[in-house]
Amino acid sequence: MESHMTIARPLPDYLVKRYHGWKATSYAENSAWYRKLADDGQHPRAMVISCCDSRVHVTSIFGADPGEFFIHRNIANLVPPYAPDGNQHGTSAAIEYAVTALKVPHLIVIGHSSCGGVRGCFDMCEGHAPALEEKSSFVGRWMDLLRPGYARLPEGTEAERVAALEKQAVLVSLENLMSFPYVKEAVEEGKLTLHGLWTDIGAGGLECYDSDRGDFVPV
Amino acid sequence: MESHMTIARPLPDYLVKRYHGWKATSYAENSAWYRKLADDGQHPRAMVISCCDSRVHVTSIFGADPGEFFIHRNIANLVPPYAPDGNQHGTSAAIEYAVTALKVPHLIVIGHSSCGGVRGCFDMCEGHAPALEEKSSFVGRWMDLLRPGYARLPEGTEAERVAALEKQAVLVSLENLMSFPYVKEAVEEGKLTLHGLWTDIGAGGLECYDSDRGDFVPV
Amino acid sequence: MESHMTIARPLPDYLVKRYHGWKATSYAENSAWYRKLADDGQHPRAMVISCCDSRVHVTSIFGADPGEFFIHRNIANLVPPYAPDGNQHGTSAAIEYAVTALKVPHLIVIGHSSCGGVRGCFDMCEGHAPALEEKSSFVGRWMDLLRPGYARLPEGTEAERVAALEKQAVLVSLENLMSFPYVKEAVEEGKLTLHGLWTDIGAGGLECYDSDRGDFVPV
Amino acid sequence: MESHMTIARPLPDYLVKRYHGWKATSYAENSAWYRKLADDGQHPRAMVISCCDSRVHVTSIFGADPGEFFIHRNIANLVPPYAPDGNQHGTSAAIEYAVTALKVPHLIVIGHSSCGGVRGCFDMCEGHAPALEEKSSFVGRWMDLLRPGYARLPEGTEAERVAALEKQAVLVSLENLMSFPYVKEAVEEGKLTLHGLWTDIGAGGLECYDSDRGDFVPV
Repeated sequence: MESHMTIARPLPDYLVKRYHGWKATSYAENSAWYRKLADDGQHPRAMVISCCDSRVHVTSIFGADPGEFFIHRNIANLVPPYAPDGNQHGTSAAIEYAVTALKVPHLIVIGHSSCGGVRGCFDMCEGHAPALEEKSSFVGRWMDLLRPGYARLPEGTEAERVAALEKQAVLVSLENLMSFPYVKEAVEEGKLTLHGLWTDIGAGGLECYDSDRGDFVPV
Repeated sequence: MESHMTIARPLPDYLVKRYHGWKATSYAENSAWYRKLADDGQHPRAMVISCCDSRVHVTSIFGADPGEFFIHRNIANLVPPYAPDGNQHGTSAAIEYAVTALKVPHLIVIGHSSCGGVRGCFDMCEGHAPALEEKSSFVGRWMDLLRPGYARLPEGTEAERVAALEKQAVLVSLENLMSFPYVKEAVEEGKLTLHGLWTDIGAGGLECYDSDRGDFVPV
Repeated sequence: MESHMTIARPLPDYLVKRYHGWKATSYAENSAWYRKLADDGQHPRAMVISCCDSRVHVTSIFGADPGEFFIHRNIANLVPPYAPDGNQHGTSAAIEYAVTALKVPHLIVIGHSSCGGVRGCFDMCEGHAPALEEKSSFVGRWMDLLRPGYARLPEGTEAERVAALEKQAVLVSLENLMSFPYVKEAVEEGKLTLHGLWTDIGAGGLECYDSDRGDFVPV
Repeated sequence: MESHMTIARPLPDYLVKRYHGWKATSYAENSAWYRKLADDGQHPRAMVISCCDSRVHVTSIFGADPGEFFIHRNIANLVPPYAPDGNQHGTSAAIEYAVTALKVPHLIVIGHSSCGGVRGCFDMCEGHAPALEEKSSFVGRWMDLLRPGYARLPEGTEAERVAALEKQAVLVSLENLMSFPYVKEAVEEGKLTLHGLWTDIGAGGLECYDSDRGDFVPV
């Protein structure tokens, strides 16, 4: 196992202990399922695109077991437009794999309250975050994806507009998903349904985008 | 909440039911903690870079609660080299945010057995997956990141070489992480430690890269 | 560093050695986290009130890492009633600090089997421990706090009654906690939840007080 | 198990899971020792007086196993002077029990860097914390114990003086310990030794009070 990287460190003690605890309980009670998942491969019921934020636990919220959700997590749960330009697109790779190889029947985009990435985008679009506008800012260039959402924010207080932008991050992603030819085809053939959610971390709330009303409504 | 996207669908019933169950139990038991996390913001102890694979549950393995891990998940837990070229780099954005804004003290890259992305990379590098070599293949272009790992695979059976490539995905990522100036600086200042893990899904095993031995060893 | 106290002694050798071992391993693996905790301050998820008893290791039981629990330990895990009389109340000071300054979302009182303090209280209330009834007995005066718990013990064998008194120590403390105005307010606003536990040292058991059943039940 | 307290809540999920993990591993591997501790009672080698601060883990630092340390934790690791006035003194009760009933051979007072209680005392003594001076402030009245330490602080920058006050908290406690007749007697008979420590949380440092030099020195 050759490598020029020599700086990896041992895992902190308490994580080692917790792992051994998991192995002796949750894993032991469920080992036949894990073995089957390893032998047969995964057959997830859904792909979930969620934020990296440590407070968003989509597996907890939906009581998901191992094997259930194929999960991509990035800053602000964003999907870029389809752009097969030969460059690296990690999010697009995950979508391509889930839809064309795993053929997931559901694709859920979930946003959340107090999103740091969305907040940064808001400040940048308002002209208050010059550092994010620099070419070298990965967060800034990533949040450019949400500029179309900012452009259609309604009037309101700052807090209202930031919250609306969090929901726009879900809608922009859903729109961009439809620019992927295999997503569009699967949706039109009834083999895939898209879902847009937004969760309120503090209140434990969950809202789902209702296409008919054109708004998010509590689940 | 205006949008041109009108195809989002309601959440399947069983997910709605599980959400309501979570709200009435896990959330209710822990609501004060969620409120505090919402009010005070997150202070995660670690960033974890994991695969999207539905069988990898890093929060379960480590008994993690909401707020503990900032998690980025992509195909094959890969980190690209530092490239501030003004293009969109979702993984790099997540790393930038975790290290410079959240100042996480640990950064853990975790690979796993039976990784579909790594398998595809292996086949592509062996010349057996022409579809992945096309410019339009997001998965193929993403897995190009792992070509340096393929180049240094030891001799062995195909199964051995594929497993070794899964671990190379962790090592290549750790190496690329050090090409980010703020990661390198934080590591050298003792404010950040990097950790490389690999988990065997079926057996529930966990191995940690040991820089001294130059190999992964069971935790 | 002037002091009139000149009788402090060097640390025993084996403790010095263990400290150096910890520094080179657990600390080294986790040093970035310790530095962050030192720089950012603590954000504990819970206050725990536990007995001083050497056999009760709440951090082990819950796989807690540094920074997770704000822990007050006194004889028999007792909380006195709210009494802002200008005197020194160490337990009340710890509660005031945790709830009003740190704003902990959980407050856990944990009792245990074979509690020497509770045993002493039982003997004293039965009239068999005159030394504890003396004004100068700090243990006796401290255990007076548990007299209301003794008053409502059910009939039973002595062993049953002593074990019931250990659990009363938890309940009396929970009741007294609610006499602190800021505790009551935080509980009523959903910003703080109280939890009552009792652990069986020999059997490694853990029971949680269930308000609906009015009894402790295994976790 | 009668009680008028009906507001206790279930334990959060992840703590329940971690407990079960501990039970199946650490406890299972050590159950004979736990059973012996339960049957024979505790015979701790030392009493430790430490701060409630979540970042101070004296059992980790000294690799302590269950049964090893009888631990009292309060705000700023303070010991009040001996005062057998018939009022409740939780710290004094813990000391009385450890020295007269358990007859511990070592008594260790350990202070630490970034202590919020000491900082509050410093601000109060400088006249900058009127809230802490109110009769109803439990933290303020508790920190009054450290006023003699403030009175003998050397000149210096604020940071130096606060750090010196953290060490004074250890020295004042050691002095007050000697006002307990059974502590003094045990020390003079060579049955008990006192130790004063101070730990630097971020750096993982440990210093021990050296009576000859009249200062703390690295262990």
